[in-house]
Amino acid sequence: MMRSPQVRNGVVETPSPSHFHSSVSVHKLRRFNILIVVFRFASFCFSLASAIFMFTNSRRGSDLPQWHHFDAFRFVAVAGAIVALYSLFEVGASVWEISRGATVFPEVVQVWFDFGHDQVFAYLLLSAGSAGTSLARILKEMDTCTVSNAFCVQSDISIAFGFAGFMFLGFSSLLSGFRVVSFIINGSRFNVQN
Amino acid sequence: MMRSPQVRNGVVETPSPSHFHSSVSVHKLRRFNILIVVFRFASFCFSLASAIFMFTNSRRGSDLPQWHHFDAFRFVAVAGAIVALYSLFEVGASVWEISRGATVFPEVVQVWFDFGHDQVFAYLLLSAGSAGTSLARILKEMDTCTVSNAFCVQSDISIAFGFAGFMFLGFSSLLSGFRVVSFIINGSRFNVQN
Repeated sequence: MMRSPQVRNGVVETPSPSHFHSSVSVHKLRRFNILIVVFRFASFCFSLASAIFMFTNSRRGSDLPQWHHFDAFRFVAVAGAIVALYSLFEVGASVWEISRGATVFPEVVQVWFDFGHDQVFAYLLLSAGSAGTSLARILKEMDTCTVSNAFCVQSDISIAFGFAGFMFLGFSSLLSGFRVVSFIINGSRFNVQN
Repeated sequence: MMRSPQVRNGVVETPSPSHFHSSVSVHKLRRFNILIVVFRFASFCFSLASAIFMFTNSRRGSDLPQWHHFDAFRFVAVAGAIVALYSLFEVGASVWEISRGATVFPEVVQVWFDFGHDQVFAYLLLSAGSAGTSLARILKEMDTCTVSNAFCVQSDISIAFGFAGFMFLGFSSLLSGFRVVSFIINGSRFNVQN
């Protein structure tokens, strides 16, 4: 419900989170924000691991397969790196928000920024994972994996980490979508009603 | 804002869309619903075309490539068929809603059903498209496309239709997400405030 200024003891109280939110609500909000940080940190770890595994997936020897010879594997590496950077930024922003009680950007920008980027980067990471999976399956049928089995195993691990990163980014997207709805309803990102 | 029953002339009036929505709002709602039908119908056409192009992508001759020999192309065909079925159902549900003024399922089920399935099937279609693109690029580097160029062209067209279907499903997802938010705010799927 939209809150309107309330008159109490002759003084107009404008809605201010630090005033009208009870300690229980603040406690809930803190748990919600910590959950976001956990998901974002997991997303960061998995996408970074995915990028590192793919970027280092080259063996000495010109006749051995290299990750950068394949479009789909380049896509996996770059998508993992982009999402890792974004997640790192978002972890920082969330920690800032928990410690200072204010968002980095203005609140309306912050909630839409988070939700929009979560959605787009989730699509990006899923797309990279699917393209990588498709390529990895084809390579198994060709003789690439018999030439260098380690290459195929490392690619598979990188792709699996990418999907795990996608999963946690999807969870973050749910929570940031919830924050957008809260913001639209309450005029503030606080998800609690009291 | 949540509407509560209002007392007027001693009679408790419960909120009823047909009563308190002005003719202007009903007009807006109708335009919104027609936009949803258009997007869903476009999504249906493109995903059906994607499925048909892939399902018919086989040539006579045992040495020529067939679509069902490749995992990723099977994925494209099946994902296109699933989304085409879902979109057809949703077109029917939207037309029903416009003509009768009521949703097929109870309203709370309908808005969440639409939004949830839009999200999941958009991910499915994007994943299939990415996997198909990755495979198609590899096939161009191998000798498959020199053996049967028509096979590769038809695959590309099918994948392109799949991405177009994904785009319109994404638009539908935005609108159905908007309906979910409206439902949460207003307690009804009507997106207008008056």
